[in-house]
Amino acid sequence: MYNAGNGTIIFDKKPSVLSFSAVVGKKEGAGPYGKYFDQVEEDAHFGQETWEKAESENLRRSIDLTLQKGGFKAEDIDFSISGDLLNQCTSSGYALRSLGIPFLGVYGACSTMAESMLLGSLIINGGGAKRVLCSTSSNFCSAERQFRMPLEYGGQRTPSAQWTVTGSGSVVLGNGGAGPFIDSVSCGKIVDMGIKDAANMGAAMAPAFTDTVKKHFEATGRDFSYYDLVVSGDLGIVGMDIANDLFSRDGIKTLGKYNDCGAMIFDKETQDTHAGGSGCGCSASMLCGYILPEMKKGNLRHVLFAATGALMSPTFTMQGESIPSISHAISLEA
Amino acid sequence: MYNAGNGTIIFDKKPSVLSFSAVVGKKEGAGPYGKYFDQVEEDAHFGQETWEKAESENLRRSIDLTLQKGGFKAEDIDFSISGDLLNQCTSSGYALRSLGIPFLGVYGACSTMAESMLLGSLIINGGGAKRVLCSTSSNFCSAERQFRMPLEYGGQRTPSAQWTVTGSGSVVLGNGGAGPFIDSVSCGKIVDMGIKDAANMGAAMAPAFTDTVKKHFEATGRDFSYYDLVVSGDLGIVGMDIANDLFSRDGIKTLGKYNDCGAMIFDKETQDTHAGGSGCGCSASMLCGYILPEMKKGNLRHVLFAATGALMSPTFTMQGESIPSISHAISLEA
Repeated sequence: MYNAGNGTIIFDKKPSVLSFSAVVGKKEGAGPYGKYFDQVEEDAHFGQETWEKAESENLRRSIDLTLQKGGFKAEDIDFSISGDLLNQCTSSGYALRSLGIPFLGVYGACSTMAESMLLGSLIINGGGAKRVLCSTSSNFCSAERQFRMPLEYGGQRTPSAQWTVTGSGSVVLGNGGAGPFIDSVSCGKIVDMGIKDAANMGAAMAPAFTDTVKKHFEATGRDFSYYDLVVSGDLGIVGMDIANDLFSRDGIKTLGKYNDCGAMIFDKETQDTHAGGSGCGCSASMLCGYILPEMKKGNLRHVLFAATGALMSPTFTMQGESIPSISHAISLEA
Repeated sequence: MYNAGNGTIIFDKKPSVLSFSAVVGKKEGAGPYGKYFDQVEEDAHFGQETWEKAESENLRRSIDLTLQKGGFKAEDIDFSISGDLLNQCTSSGYALRSLGIPFLGVYGACSTMAESMLLGSLIINGGGAKRVLCSTSSNFCSAERQFRMPLEYGGQRTPSAQWTVTGSGSVVLGNGGAGPFIDSVSCGKIVDMGIKDAANMGAAMAPAFTDTVKKHFEATGRDFSYYDLVVSGDLGIVGMDIANDLFSRDGIKTLGKYNDCGAMIFDKETQDTHAGGSGCGCSASMLCGYILPEMKKGNLRHVLFAATGALMSPTFTMQGESIPSISHAISLEA
């Protein structure tokens, strides 16, 4: 591999996505991409007693399904890399507890799917592993009570607020296979433009996304013409507008190829999700449910998957701090 | 590099610890290792308005000092890997916000120092980076109010409870240099023996520590005779006793070479810290303040640094769950 500077690594032997799956909740199943997901669970509790355990069970189901689809047992996997939005990344810790795979916890907020794949592909290309499991999850109810208000309070949501996706995605990365392949990755830096409104994450994260995309283009010599799709993680409708403005200001033509998982996953007319979807599970389920299968089918050839994360906590927000954001990009080729 | 199985990677070109520092609070400075730390801050607030910002400032000071000691600027560093105990790993996110280094957040609870060095050394040996900054922190006051009780409540502590270290440690890893070098790393798996008492973390984590050490010994063909010191992260006095029992039960002779950062950092007779120290900053500050300098001086030649982490959250504990634990080991040679 080759470090092209500014966080971008270009792989000589491209790691492959050997297996993947997405398991989502009922609302996500009723959205425009509902038919693409591997499983849609009608029970908001996923058979568990609490929202947090529901999220962990959702993640575990995607992990089990990804292993099963690839014909892998837990002992075939060298490392598992996972993280989530719950305090202390407990959805991941509890989901992976009984599998016995060497475990590396990550925290990238909603950028976690890309962060875990970035690290996994670095380890594989470096020769440290044959196969790495990367996964993440989010849950509307566990996120609401941890980050916002008790659901029972029934608070009003602002127009810029996003709806945390109940969903999970996981992949097994490795060598060989039929792809899609990861040709390069770009690790983002923390960007904080001073946004303090925790109900407007899209605005906080958009500059991190465009920063990483610009650095990826500089390092690889590419632009939007190379990709069939450049997709941000969960900027939502408000953040996507800002990202379009930022690209435009920098003279970058998106050629109609830019979209956002948060803007895609819900129907904005009928699903009452305001600025769209968010959460680690948003970009993870769109990647594993829609993008990777479309690449397998030959409908998408080159995709830049740039998940986006807001690194604040309710504690720091209450202390008057602004929202540091990040975006990591995975360049996929069919 | 070579994957020897069960999470252990043996390096062909051993990554080097190019620079390091430890910055701790007043109580840690008054402990048996106080004179070893680079900086002891007398102000519990580190000049900030809140405990969380104090922790982040503490981390930032260690990072700045480590860069300065090594003669590095931020732009000399390819990746920064950091995490901590605060919800959403905000000590790290805010500490690294303005540095502009590509950032990878990790969550390994108190195993974070070892996890970040494990990942950093994999990336360096794989050729993905020349230099990686690895860091972590903890703070007594921010941990108490997040994980336990408001300080003002003045609750009684059980004898098995540990005292979260106010401290931070950071290293720059790279190629070349004078060492100490990392010859191998062992990534732990999650171990959960059913302990539910969040005031007895040592008991929860001890089996994860002995599991990782045993797997490291199996993969490398080593035992305690190879090392001058095998040090667990923060099992404390209670957990260290359990680890000794577990080694003994498995017929592993520790040869008087086993110690624990949590048992070492405070004076158990005079500092009223019950079972000893804990927190990400415990093993990080003991590594960067005491162990690495002693290796530089030639007083320690081979050290196995096995930080330990409890992956629970107060939410899951209140929901009746047991405590999943993990330990990652870094094998250092002078």
